[in-house]
Amino acid sequence: MTGRKVDPAHWAVIEHRVLNVVAQQGFMKHVGAQVVHLAPGECTTQVERRPELLQNMGFFHGGCIAFLVDNATAIAASTLLRAGQAVLTAEYKLNFLNPARGDRLVCRARVVKPGRTLSVVTCDVYSVEDGTERHAATALATIAVVTLPP
Amino acid sequence: MTGRKVDPAHWAVIEHRVLNVVAQQGFMKHVGAQVVHLAPGECTTQVERRPELLQNMGFFHGGCIAFLVDNATAIAASTLLRAGQAVLTAEYKLNFLNPARGDRLVCRARVVKPGRTLSVVTCDVYSVEDGTERHAATALATIAVVTLPP
Amino acid sequence: MTGRKVDPAHWAVIEHRVLNVVAQQGFMKHVGAQVVHLAPGECTTQVERRPELLQNMGFFHGGCIAFLVDNATAIAASTLLRAGQAVLTAEYKLNFLNPARGDRLVCRARVVKPGRTLSVVTCDVYSVEDGTERHAATALATIAVVTLPP
Amino acid sequence: MTGRKVDPAHWAVIEHRVLNVVAQQGFMKHVGAQVVHLAPGECTTQVERRPELLQNMGFFHGGCIAFLVDNATAIAASTLLRAGQAVLTAEYKLNFLNPARGDRLVCRARVVKPGRTLSVVTCDVYSVEDGTERHAATALATIAVVTLPP
Repeated sequence: MTGRKVDPAHWAVIEHRVLNVVAQQGFMKHVGAQVVHLAPGECTTQVERRPELLQNMGFFHGGCIAFLVDNATAIAASTLLRAGQAVLTAEYKLNFLNPARGDRLVCRARVVKPGRTLSVVTCDVYSVEDGTERHAATALATIAVVTLPP
Repeated sequence: MTGRKVDPAHWAVIEHRVLNVVAQQGFMKHVGAQVVHLAPGECTTQVERRPELLQNMGFFHGGCIAFLVDNATAIAASTLLRAGQAVLTAEYKLNFLNPARGDRLVCRARVVKPGRTLSVVTCDVYSVEDGTERHAATALATIAVVTLPP
Repeated sequence: MTGRKVDPAHWAVIEHRVLNVVAQQGFMKHVGAQVVHLAPGECTTQVERRPELLQNMGFFHGGCIAFLVDNATAIAASTLLRAGQAVLTAEYKLNFLNPARGDRLVCRARVVKPGRTLSVVTCDVYSVEDGTERHAATALATIAVVTLPP
Repeated sequence: MTGRKVDPAHWAVIEHRVLNVVAQQGFMKHVGAQVVHLAPGECTTQVERRPELLQNMGFFHGGCIAFLVDNATAIAASTLLRAGQAVLTAEYKLNFLNPARGDRLVCRARVVKPGRTLSVVTCDVYSVEDGTERHAATALATIAVVTLPP
């Protein structure tokens, strides 16, 4: 989906709307994650290590990784919406690949199949340790596209 | 798995160890969730509504629900460990069924197939509104049982 | 979902339509599976052991189990359709619990959340050995409800 | 995982063992699928269109696609085994992306994370119509690596 073409003025509207929705999410602020890249069909978020994001062995908590997957996949799908539409996450599955050590998590979501009613999104989470990325989790999500009441 | 029999003294040791691990999880405290029921192969957790757990429409954030699933499924599997073993979540999948309105989330995990190396756990999350439970999400998890180095 | 009430005449129409669709599936015949129970939101299928359904160790092949899950979940969801609607499987996940030995597989699917555009269906597959059922697999499926062009 | 290096003589042994296991699968023959590419961590299979592999609308049956995913992911993981080990599929999830029209299905599985006890494998299924591939399904599998009794 990389390289989708979109009219720049239209994209500015979409970007503004998406970031505005994200800014209203209490849990996003509570976790302290940020959107660091947004493009048609793509979203990258990241979060810095803080004690309150960890589990008992000092790794990032799986639930923190799941939050990033939940959010980034929905945001990636929402960049392809038309006016009057919204996204609703139907489901996702995530596999943990390596313990999430390090200073930061980076989460990259990408729409693999946009749809009128369902979009399928893949997502990979990496932990960054001494500047090196390590694959922490991979996920596959189904996002419903719903039409808002006028 | 309900009604597994276990020696009460042995269970007290397990319960103490499990709750001790949970108490060391920064993210559990940050979300503010609590273990409210623990039995062999079972774990129930809950969390009260707070603005920092919500998404932009005022429902509990999907990432908060995913955290509960992540944690409760691993805890349920960990109640069946033997000495020198630990759990490591391999993967899970969750389906969102209804918007999670209300005052509280209740998350119930139950081992459906305990294994020497893999346990399969189901999990259901309910939102509680005016005392009534509504099915918010259902999940299926695979938890690896690993032997710790001595 | 057990015990949904439905007008008997209406149900006869649905049952006829569903079984008619199933009868047109070449792969269903090729595997040799049969619908043995159908009710609103429910479908049970089964298949007898034959050498061509097995894997190299003599158990039922995982792909045969996946076929049963694929079919029974879609059929269960299709019992709740209105006129002019059809089902389209969006995705499913299945966990294998025990080797599928024995003479027969029984697959039970049940809608846990019917929806206007998405239904969520759980499914369990049992192998029957000497008259005893053993849990072979458990699954969770998302079935899209689509409106057919007139 | 593409491009893993392996001693050619050792690879010949692995290839022979893997193809030998596949040849003993009754369901593989019944579906009529074939392994068309095998490399360390990779497996591609394909199957030609036949009426007995279809569903009621004339597309390849979802259960046939699931069979390909089931088999190719396990085979891909099995190419990385050491002597005395075997694979056992723990679970997988698949998303259907487009109706599987056309003359042939091609299924490509690739290990994304090999492990001592669990390997994670991605898999994509394409339908080939007039020489053009169309993405039919994408999947994510967890394959257990078990040590056989001596």
